[in-house]
Amino acid sequence: MSAVPAGPAAPSWYDALLHPDTVAILGASGTPGKTTARPLEHLRLHGWRGEVFPVNPARDSVLGEQAWPSVRALPVVPDHVLILTGADQAVEAVRECAGLGVKVATVLADGFVGGSGDGARRRAELRRILDGSDLRLLGPSSLGVAAPGRRFAFTANAAFAEPDLDDGGVFVASQSGSAIGALLSRGKEMGIGFHGMVSTGNEVDLTLGEICLASVDDPRVRSYALFLENLTAAEDLRAFARAAAERGKPVLAYKLGRTEAGAGLAVGHTGALAGDDAVADALLKDLGIARVRTFEALLEGQNLAVGLPIRPAGAARARVCVVSTTGGGGAMAVDCLAAAGAELPGPSAETAERLARAGVDAGGGALIDLTLAGTRYEVMKGALDIVLSALEFDAVVAVPGSSARFHPELAVKPIVDSGGSGTPLAAFVVPAAPEALRLLRANGIAAFRTAESCADALTAVFDRRPPTDRAHYAAPTGTPSTVLDEAESYRVLDGIGVRTAQYAVLDARDLPGDLPVPGPAAVKVLSSEVPHKSDVGGVVLGVADGAELRGAAERIRRSVRQRVPGAAADRLLVQTMVRGLGEALVGYRYEPDVGPVVVLAAGGVLAELYQDRSVRPAPVDLAAAREMVGEVVAFRALGGYRGAPLGDLDALADAVVAFSRLAELEGPPVLEAEVNPLIVLPQGEGVVAVDALVRREREG
Amino acid sequence: MSAVPAGPAAPSWYDALLHPDTVAILGASGTPGKTTARPLEHLRLHGWRGEVFPVNPARDSVLGEQAWPSVRALPVVPDHVLILTGADQAVEAVRECAGLGVKVATVLADGFVGGSGDGARRRAELRRILDGSDLRLLGPSSLGVAAPGRRFAFTANAAFAEPDLDDGGVFVASQSGSAIGALLSRGKEMGIGFHGMVSTGNEVDLTLGEICLASVDDPRVRSYALFLENLTAAEDLRAFARAAAERGKPVLAYKLGRTEAGAGLAVGHTGALAGDDAVADALLKDLGIARVRTFEALLEGQNLAVGLPIRPAGAARARVCVVSTTGGGGAMAVDCLAAAGAELPGPSAETAERLARAGVDAGGGALIDLTLAGTRYEVMKGALDIVLSALEFDAVVAVPGSSARFHPELAVKPIVDSGGSGTPLAAFVVPAAPEALRLLRANGIAAFRTAESCADALTAVFDRRPPTDRAHYAAPTGTPSTVLDEAESYRVLDGIGVRTAQYAVLDARDLPGDLPVPGPAAVKVLSSEVPHKSDVGGVVLGVADGAELRGAAERIRRSVRQRVPGAAADRLLVQTMVRGLGEALVGYRYEPDVGPVVVLAAGGVLAELYQDRSVRPAPVDLAAAREMVGEVVAFRALGGYRGAPLGDLDALADAVVAFSRLAELEGPPVLEAEVNPLIVLPQGEGVVAVDALVRREREG
Repeated sequence: MSAVPAGPAAPSWYDALLHPDTVAILGASGTPGKTTARPLEHLRLHGWRGEVFPVNPARDSVLGEQAWPSVRALPVVPDHVLILTGADQAVEAVRECAGLGVKVATVLADGFVGGSGDGARRRAELRRILDGSDLRLLGPSSLGVAAPGRRFAFTANAAFAEPDLDDGGVFVASQSGSAIGALLSRGKEMGIGFHGMVSTGNEVDLTLGEICLASVDDPRVRSYALFLENLTAAEDLRAFARAAAERGKPVLAYKLGRTEAGAGLAVGHTGALAGDDAVADALLKDLGIARVRTFEALLEGQNLAVGLPIRPAGAARARVCVVSTTGGGGAMAVDCLAAAGAELPGPSAETAERLARAGVDAGGGALIDLTLAGTRYEVMKGALDIVLSALEFDAVVAVPGSSARFHPELAVKPIVDSGGSGTPLAAFVVPAAPEALRLLRANGIAAFRTAESCADALTAVFDRRPPTDRAHYAAPTGTPSTVLDEAESYRVLDGIGVRTAQYAVLDARDLPGDLPVPGPAAVKVLSSEVPHKSDVGGVVLGVADGAELRGAAERIRRSVRQRVPGAAADRLLVQTMVRGLGEALVGYRYEPDVGPVVVLAAGGVLAELYQDRSVRPAPVDLAAAREMVGEVVAFRALGGYRGAPLGDLDALADAVVAFSRLAELEGPPVLEAEVNPLIVLPQGEGVVAVDALVRREREG
Repeated sequence: MSAVPAGPAAPSWYDALLHPDTVAILGASGTPGKTTARPLEHLRLHGWRGEVFPVNPARDSVLGEQAWPSVRALPVVPDHVLILTGADQAVEAVRECAGLGVKVATVLADGFVGGSGDGARRRAELRRILDGSDLRLLGPSSLGVAAPGRRFAFTANAAFAEPDLDDGGVFVASQSGSAIGALLSRGKEMGIGFHGMVSTGNEVDLTLGEICLASVDDPRVRSYALFLENLTAAEDLRAFARAAAERGKPVLAYKLGRTEAGAGLAVGHTGALAGDDAVADALLKDLGIARVRTFEALLEGQNLAVGLPIRPAGAARARVCVVSTTGGGGAMAVDCLAAAGAELPGPSAETAERLARAGVDAGGGALIDLTLAGTRYEVMKGALDIVLSALEFDAVVAVPGSSARFHPELAVKPIVDSGGSGTPLAAFVVPAAPEALRLLRANGIAAFRTAESCADALTAVFDRRPPTDRAHYAAPTGTPSTVLDEAESYRVLDGIGVRTAQYAVLDARDLPGDLPVPGPAAVKVLSSEVPHKSDVGGVVLGVADGAELRGAAERIRRSVRQRVPGAAADRLLVQTMVRGLGEALVGYRYEPDVGPVVVLAAGGVLAELYQDRSVRPAPVDLAAAREMVGEVVAFRALGGYRGAPLGDLDALADAVVAFSRLAELEGPPVLEAEVNPLIVLPQGEGVVAVDALVRREREG
């Protein structure tokens, strides 16, 4: 494990954000039930003991409390000001707060998104104000924050009318304001409490990663639940994820935008650029964050993750044992776990024998069903103790049936009593049994209402790998970029160690008498003005000798001149044609807010139709590159499938590593690059690039 | 719509099964809480008013009631006897019941599965007893039945200790006994009641389809929830599904075995043959049964399906509108719906204008978020009324946020009040809000706790198509089968109208001077003893003339004789080689318990790796065949993708229809057949089979 910086001391704004002594509410309404009345109502309802100042120049009093005309007029400088006004007034209020030395301001208003217009203008103004002061800003479009343990609910979210807020170890950070309300009420129902809840909104200043990082050394925070709409400020998220991993505090995330319809919404909602969801997936994986696919798993999975170390790079899939007192429910769990990617090896012969001695017939399958042995405490406890100590399982899922509803002492109590064995233990409770769920969760067991969320959380938590320490990459500077021609692109590949097919650059007006490379050859126009050369007749294949070369040159010149008028078509690249067992595509691009990523796919139209590809933040190491090769289904055809000859997949992984180092290249940053195709030769013979394109910033 | 038989009158056993007047419990235990004590306890708890006779030769009384020594000794012949003894005693008890004229016996015992041994022996014995009597048998391995409206809980399932059973319109039939308990308690929590619940177990006699069919004209049954482990007696299921569709009673099903691990379990659990899950999927689709993927959707989706007509064959995907008072929750719904395959077109310009006049900014995306307009009754009601009457939507999903928990009058009540508009309306309730869920369900609105189950149920219910009236097919008789050689197989194809490439059959010892077909040709050994001819050197491609033909014949003869000693290698098939734009694989096979199915896939190793295929019960009509072509992703490459030339996909669909008619072929039944490859030519030029294999029963 690489060295990480010592634990960050919580920055001064952190206490002002979540644990202030004095707060002001700007634009507080005196009409009970109105959105702008809620923050004061919530503070009162939960009995917050700090000092609160309603600010409303139009009123003398607000909900029976003295109203102040401005923040400036207050007898003290509040730690945290919640600004409930419209967008333009909010900008002025932030200016006032900055001038007064307020530590944190939270802005509720919308109207700060968009690449131009009012939104962009307001955002720029906020940045100007903040750059000149110590004020930190939450939002805009933030619904506020809560710290249940401090009875502090400083939010306009209606959900905080909840009579009691449960303190607990989960820290929630959400780009969606409404999601914190849903998590609050669902957590309440589940018996899961929160140390802090933050709605981050548009993240013009404080980012989600920064806020979470500030909380990471708080001993009362045990784990994190993130609700993400977009990936913004990925390096802040990385710093937090690394710190959390170092401290053994698990991070679970639910992210919107799995589909294009969903991604489109996320844009509309907070205005950040929606990335490709595959990039988000790759980034979260690279950060050791467990991405759950079901909203319920975000909370239900917390107990499973706490105390479970992140598994090392290259670890195999989780091997799970399912023990049930209901055949149907147990089978549902097995089905969902297998669909989510878990292994269900079933008990070893030795474990089956131990079970048999305890009166349980393991049956030889993936499920250990105790129905025949009887739904009794001793049977369930005995079976659990045996499988929890069996080396062939990484985790155990207990599936109590109908008895859980009225007789938790039979099959639920033994689950509670078997917890803490060192092997992770979860429960999928098949009937409606709220008391059983609460009993399990209160005792630190992850308990799930559905087989789907159980399988989702378990596989997501086990699939975590240590966050990588990404080397510094060359971020674009904004200098205009240029597309390199094929020969220039090959020189870049040569520099990073990706092998290219033998080639020569010729002047079409002065051709040699024979091929300058071993034939047969491909002859291509060489011009950065003609990037899609095949489409304009700029490529002739299978050229065998000097005469054919001259013919090819003539055809290319004529065709390109006709179809791309004005483009230079005199330079040619002549390249030895390479036959391999298959083709790969390797891509690299710089993603705003995320950084450089590398993409590996199979060549050809089918791989494209199936979206068969693997993505990672760049650069990658060899282990990650091998994983990527394994993730592309089409490459199984080169891995000995059905007796077909083996392709050099080791060399392919090496090439991916090399290509991903474009991120670290000296000189102007590379914005995007692609080798398509990269020919995969038989095992031991390597891989060879036969076309390439690089877009790079110009020399400054 | 085709004519269907008039409604079946409920058979006489149906009332004995679910609504008997007198019952006996054989093997009733006197120890409270024991499995065998439960049926009597449950009857008492719920106040069943019929007459119950505990039968236990070892005791004078059972739980304070007189115990009888045998069924024969009872003062009356009971309508329904529940047999709780071990397997061999159960067989004898069934014999006794049959002799006495009992109408229905239910057997709890396991021990009736397996292809040989005790299980098979007992099964055969049961069949012998039943064939000679009017007794009908439920099980073995049945946990019993319940009819809440009659206070009749005749089951050993512990879940029926539920204090009150809710009567309702849902009929549950489950191959898993424990699942009825889970459905009972979850239904209770949801406020969903049941008209009948039946655990069908091994279905040695009464099948799930038969039982459901018997209930189909009961006016109190509104809809069905099936929990399936395997597909058994598919034709009974078909008869039921058609009758249910005819009466507008929707059928939802949850089926185990999506994964191999899960399918393996289903085998172990009830002993039926586990089919390929793709076959199950195809059959349920063909029967107009909505297959849900999440257990919760099986009940939560019932209200959505009731009253919603099955959509016609060829209907497009459901176009769904999402209206929310929570941006995050609405986006979750959109994301899940899109992932499940729904269309989210967003409002038309006209609808957006109507919304704008009502003060709602539709925002231009897939989600109509009312957050800015305010969470108020009038806002939600106004928006729902507009989108429910908009022609561009087939269904509306309302997504109330945190207000649903404490203020259902704001965003939940308007959903209730907007129900019954004619456009299906569902709700995904984002916070924990049990009262809101109950209020919605009590008013007939399908209400969902998770976005996943909402999307699952909605798409499954909308994807129902009218059950087909499958023509009678030639079921295998058990006569030994034979593999036809390639030429014989082509004659079968000719007979059903699948075009084959031109070919000639030659004797290798007497070859003509030139090719007997237009060249270049493929030369192949022709022998039913050599089905995998390429693997043994039995194929030579690209043969241009008579000299090459003789050389090829010699090479084939030598290679086949060496590698398949004793096989005839003198007959050759010479076939014109055909180049097309792509290759397809068409397969046909007879599946036990399901009937004939047809499979369409793309040719090549990648299609196999991606499991890119479509399956249907055979025969199919042209609409279904076109759907199948559309389901195979690889064929998009022949449908004009990226400007590639168009393949003749119409002819491909025609060929699938023709091939599927193997099911109706005169003469000995075909057990399996495959054309691989079927060459797809350019549009207008058709498709051509260049290899084929047929396995068929021998002439009787």
